[in-house]
Amino acid sequence: MAGEGIARSTSMTFSSQLRIPGPTPLPERVVRSMSRPMVDHRGPEFSAILAEITAGAKRVFKTSSDLLFLTSSGTGGLESAVANLVSPGDEVVVALCGNFGERFAALASAYGADVVRLEFEWGQPVDAEDLALVLEKHPKAKLLLLTHNETSTGLTNPLRELARVGRDAGRVVVVDGVSSISSIEIETDGWGIDVAVSGSQKGWMAPPGLALVSVSERAWEMQSRARAPRYYFDWKEAKTWADKGMTPFTTAVSVAFALQEGIRMLEEEGLAKVYERHARLARATQAGLQALGFKLFARDGFRSNTVTAALPPEGLNVEPFRKLLHDRYGVVIAGGQNKMAGKMVRVGHLGAVGEGDIVQVLWAMEQALEEMDIAPADGRGVAAVTSSLQGVPA
Amino acid sequence: MAGEGIARSTSMTFSSQLRIPGPTPLPERVVRSMSRPMVDHRGPEFSAILAEITAGAKRVFKTSSDLLFLTSSGTGGLESAVANLVSPGDEVVVALCGNFGERFAALASAYGADVVRLEFEWGQPVDAEDLALVLEKHPKAKLLLLTHNETSTGLTNPLRELARVGRDAGRVVVVDGVSSISSIEIETDGWGIDVAVSGSQKGWMAPPGLALVSVSERAWEMQSRARAPRYYFDWKEAKTWADKGMTPFTTAVSVAFALQEGIRMLEEEGLAKVYERHARLARATQAGLQALGFKLFARDGFRSNTVTAALPPEGLNVEPFRKLLHDRYGVVIAGGQNKMAGKMVRVGHLGAVGEGDIVQVLWAMEQALEEMDIAPADGRGVAAVTSSLQGVPA
Repeated sequence: MAGEGIARSTSMTFSSQLRIPGPTPLPERVVRSMSRPMVDHRGPEFSAILAEITAGAKRVFKTSSDLLFLTSSGTGGLESAVANLVSPGDEVVVALCGNFGERFAALASAYGADVVRLEFEWGQPVDAEDLALVLEKHPKAKLLLLTHNETSTGLTNPLRELARVGRDAGRVVVVDGVSSISSIEIETDGWGIDVAVSGSQKGWMAPPGLALVSVSERAWEMQSRARAPRYYFDWKEAKTWADKGMTPFTTAVSVAFALQEGIRMLEEEGLAKVYERHARLARATQAGLQALGFKLFARDGFRSNTVTAALPPEGLNVEPFRKLLHDRYGVVIAGGQNKMAGKMVRVGHLGAVGEGDIVQVLWAMEQALEEMDIAPADGRGVAAVTSSLQGVPA
Repeated sequence: MAGEGIARSTSMTFSSQLRIPGPTPLPERVVRSMSRPMVDHRGPEFSAILAEITAGAKRVFKTSSDLLFLTSSGTGGLESAVANLVSPGDEVVVALCGNFGERFAALASAYGADVVRLEFEWGQPVDAEDLALVLEKHPKAKLLLLTHNETSTGLTNPLRELARVGRDAGRVVVVDGVSSISSIEIETDGWGIDVAVSGSQKGWMAPPGLALVSVSERAWEMQSRARAPRYYFDWKEAKTWADKGMTPFTTAVSVAFALQEGIRMLEEEGLAKVYERHARLARATQAGLQALGFKLFARDGFRSNTVTAALPPEGLNVEPFRKLLHDRYGVVIAGGQNKMAGKMVRVGHLGAVGEGDIVQVLWAMEQALEEMDIAPADGRGVAAVTSSLQGVPA
């Protein structure tokens, strides 16, 4: 039986497999980029970096709008959208189907918005027809908040359709693309998205610390009238300074070094190939998990290319399983969030991840399942991954 | 004459002297700390780091209050204080004598506070007696915002006195200690400070990206009643997650790696020695600048140990001077901010800086002054630095 003969009580790993949906592992080139000496955030060296990452990020977002960098997590980027676009009392439509949609709604509420919730069960996508009806019923809601990739359920919403519904109804469309942009296809301008938000620690292959935010002309127009308090996250300030090659406040400079290298790597590989790699690895992960008796959580056809959420096989206690993977195999996967805490595993496969990484993760899972007396480690997981990668139907 | 024989048109530097008041240069140990593989911000490795930097930062702040980390610049930390403590319409007293005091006032205004400005000329400190009078005249103002080190004018306010005035008057005292804490003496608890804010890119010797915020019981009490919108910067969330060894949103993990190492270095050197080093280098910088004909900007007795601001000698155009220092000597100093733009130089001497660095900077300035036909490079600057370091009266 595979796995026998391995000293079970001792960790055999010299490196770790960070397979959570962000922060993602840093490629060696990115790590090295952070070794360059610190620079003045108001000097010419930083201006050159800011110009390069701005231009590069715009190509990845596929936008000709302004692209702003904020020193914060992705959530800070989402908050900036709310703080810049909402006035207290405004009706705002939030379409949600998971924990990050809930976060977007909570943000809007915190800023005094009257939130109209279009809610779907966890694991189900937002429905475009239902969205159209809600927008019709709420003509005063000028703002629509969407989640592209719902990290908590491993689901990718049909953003192209949803954004079109919003644009057709004349709404300003804001998209949480934190865990999708740079890994999953998006066309910010082409799909009618006014504001898109991402985070450096996802597909960009850099550490956490920078949020990326694109702002369309329509969003600027709305921003000029919105009256929520804002200072640190004020887009106008960010734009004024960006036009001078700077940021209003001290940027996370070392993260900018890393992001510069991450974007270079994305463009060397080519975005189409990056998307294809993520899709291929997602299919392999799904096949492997199913072979091991896990049940994929997101509805078929809407499963994410950056993170796979799955319910455990009968009898498997998720948290000890994750702990064993961590302690014994150096494999770090995520658990469930909120109401799914302790009930779900989530495997991240975004950023600097290759075929062998998926093999290693599924192999370790298979060993751990045997060790926990759930199922024999007979090679099914790795075989399913291999078949998937070879394009052989499982 | 010193400097003759050096090929003037070519840069002779293989390294740079980043002598701005932050971001500060990273020690090699700190750079290496960022090479460790990325970790899960919800896993045990990060919890251990968070525990260590929390305990270490509390020792540096000299507080037993809660110490929170926010992924933002120092300004984000200041905004968190305003967002957590202000309700729209509240009277707030802001004592200011420079650009960062202005920023604190602007933040309070942005959140709807009715700001009472106690203003002093740039270069002058905030006066404790005047502060007492203003507080007496504004009994409804429960919140007092102070700047410890005014980075824009190279001035350190008499914080111990000012905080005592605030505490005696029963106010919640909030201190911008972004460019002072870890470099200049402060006793958060001992001096009656309720909230103190710093930033990783200053004396902590780490890159920008993390704000450090201490919150007293009195501040928590005020926070529970304050009604400004907050989500990303909400202290209660930060505290709830910190108690579980985490942060609510994805932390700037690589900056946390660096901060861990920076705090270790501070404690190995010993805080008393760190303060003494900063004081000694400040005196040497002041002596060197005066010898070169610069006029120190801040009032004697209140000059900062982390940054020296000075007006140029007659006939010296500041911006070309800074450019020459940058291009030819690899020496990066700051200019003036706001109304002092183009009229002032500011030399940072905080964080990983030693005696030889100050010698190098003053030597380069002396060469540059000769090259710009302002004064001969006869060694006066370096001599004055040397005398100061040797404890010889200049």
